[in-house]
Amino acid sequence: MSTDSNTEAQKKLIDLAAEFYDQFDRGEIPTMSLPTRTKTNIEYDEDSNVWVYGDRESTRSANSIRGARKLLKAVYTIEFLNNQLEEDRSSTLRELYYLSESWDSDEAQFSSQDESNQMIEDLEIVSEVTREDFHMRPEESGATVMGPLHIREQTRRGERKIHCQKDVGEGGYQIPNNPDTIEFLDCDADFVLAVETGGMRDRLVENGFDEEYNALIVHLKGQPARATRRLIKRLQDELGLPVTVFTDADPWSYRIYGSVAYGSIKSAHLSKYLATPEAQFIGVRPEDIVEYDLPTDPLSDSDINALESELEDPRFQTEYWKEQIEIQLDIGKKSEQQALASRGLDFVTDTYLPDRLEEMGML
Amino acid sequence: MSTDSNTEAQKKLIDLAAEFYDQFDRGEIPTMSLPTRTKTNIEYDEDSNVWVYGDRESTRSANSIRGARKLLKAVYTIEFLNNQLEEDRSSTLRELYYLSESWDSDEAQFSSQDESNQMIEDLEIVSEVTREDFHMRPEESGATVMGPLHIREQTRRGERKIHCQKDVGEGGYQIPNNPDTIEFLDCDADFVLAVETGGMRDRLVENGFDEEYNALIVHLKGQPARATRRLIKRLQDELGLPVTVFTDADPWSYRIYGSVAYGSIKSAHLSKYLATPEAQFIGVRPEDIVEYDLPTDPLSDSDINALESELEDPRFQTEYWKEQIEIQLDIGKKSEQQALASRGLDFVTDTYLPDRLEEMGML
Repeated sequence: MSTDSNTEAQKKLIDLAAEFYDQFDRGEIPTMSLPTRTKTNIEYDEDSNVWVYGDRESTRSANSIRGARKLLKAVYTIEFLNNQLEEDRSSTLRELYYLSESWDSDEAQFSSQDESNQMIEDLEIVSEVTREDFHMRPEESGATVMGPLHIREQTRRGERKIHCQKDVGEGGYQIPNNPDTIEFLDCDADFVLAVETGGMRDRLVENGFDEEYNALIVHLKGQPARATRRLIKRLQDELGLPVTVFTDADPWSYRIYGSVAYGSIKSAHLSKYLATPEAQFIGVRPEDIVEYDLPTDPLSDSDINALESELEDPRFQTEYWKEQIEIQLDIGKKSEQQALASRGLDFVTDTYLPDRLEEMGML
Repeated sequence: MSTDSNTEAQKKLIDLAAEFYDQFDRGEIPTMSLPTRTKTNIEYDEDSNVWVYGDRESTRSANSIRGARKLLKAVYTIEFLNNQLEEDRSSTLRELYYLSESWDSDEAQFSSQDESNQMIEDLEIVSEVTREDFHMRPEESGATVMGPLHIREQTRRGERKIHCQKDVGEGGYQIPNNPDTIEFLDCDADFVLAVETGGMRDRLVENGFDEEYNALIVHLKGQPARATRRLIKRLQDELGLPVTVFTDADPWSYRIYGSVAYGSIKSAHLSKYLATPEAQFIGVRPEDIVEYDLPTDPLSDSDINALESELEDPRFQTEYWKEQIEIQLDIGKKSEQQALASRGLDFVTDTYLPDRLEEMGML
């Protein structure tokens, strides 16, 4: 929200537009190059321990009508973003799509929201400015935090100091769309426990797990929003908190862990900003299904396909994950977090999580 | 959360179990009667202005193995709920399903979560105690409030006083799973504006609509959770706030309005607790699509079917809705809230909502 970051983002946008101008000026056909966004073009970055795009690029060039239209849309979008930053306002991706209807060139209007979303991603990649710094908001952020953390949030209505246990209701502190408006004032937490489901989040809060273990309970709400991943990253980087991720034991949930730890294919250009490579998977592990004899459902064909594709996924190329995925394919079963309730409502907080934390050297 | 309401709920549960006991004692085959839960068995209640179940009943009887098993499960569930209330604890519907695996009778275990969910609904209906008073939590509540309202929430960690503008971040105040733990301390709002989408909720907050119009902005998050509907009902009943509902212009969104105003078929037994029959639909109306020339999508076959079924739905039998639905079928188009952005980001707060509020006599 600060004018400094606005100015910086504006500068990068104008540089982009200036590049098109220079290309024209030199008598060249304007182009924009972007990394190819497929699984085969993401690779491990040894320095930052996250997955980033490889060297393969695709080029948008004005030498076709389709390409020229794309660049026209880019220029209109750059102008819109520049004005938005100038006025210190923000908008959603969907609003951008609709707003394009009011643009004076019909050719510049987006024909679908996929197209406008993609445009913002393209501009993020080439300008190295994040969507949040363009002031583009997602439709939903929605996740919450509960635990011994005192923050100051810079809102449009002034500063708010909020303690994420003492100043919030049972529902917790709502993470804003842009968590970089948060400043950490004080933290008594020993670690972050990022939790997939609302039911389990509420169980941990009801059982007082955050108080007893000095845990910062972050609700992931399924596949976590960027705001949630960014906050987790900052909690680790700035406060040195170890991060653990607690999900269901099924292939889709491992991808939730993967997106917290390694970033996603869609946002590999933002891994350094969003990914927390040190994040550890606390469970539920396929071996827990066996060890604790948890209630299960059989793996569906699409579960099996997803597990097999994870065995090939560069993000899951570790001994740990290979072993767990093979156990799961072997037993042919999956389990949910809340299946731990089959051993009683307190089993997860009295036994399961403390045992796992000890195993992981965190208690 | 109070011990009084626990005791009351426990008493009603034990009465139910006692009834089975008496039936046995009289040499009768135990039965439990429930209203039939279909659209043809909901009717308008003139006194309370909401839709409730009609007179048709279906009976669960122990004269078949299937029926006997249902009653056995009911008895185990009653015992579980009674213990839960005794210990002042709570659990989710999913936890109940898994917990049943630990019950000593295999016959009493639920075979699916649909079955355990249905059981809790049955017990709500026959005992006239709400799920919240059984301390059964939903998986998600998640909606938020922003506006000039000062509340006190009774949490497990003690009382929290929160002003829903001054003490919260940009994300607002998170509604707890059981909003009856909230006490209203002070309210400067003139009306409630319940908003379907997160994008629009954020737009209104960014534009300061709650401050300029003394509005209490409640995010519905699509089909609203029971907690959200309960809070809206209480805002009207206890604070006398008029309630307006702001959604997309499509048949699914009218059902969102319908569930706020008239309750849903699934929860017709709770209409008096959850429905706000005085709630008014502010838009986006099919006639707005025409008047403001909004960007649209064509109605799909399932949209058309849904609109036609709404023309038959007892909840939409008003001149207003018939006219709007017929306009929509006629133009064959639907629109989203955020489509208002095609006339600029401030159009919704500077023009559309003030005009509509004036038309409705609320400004």
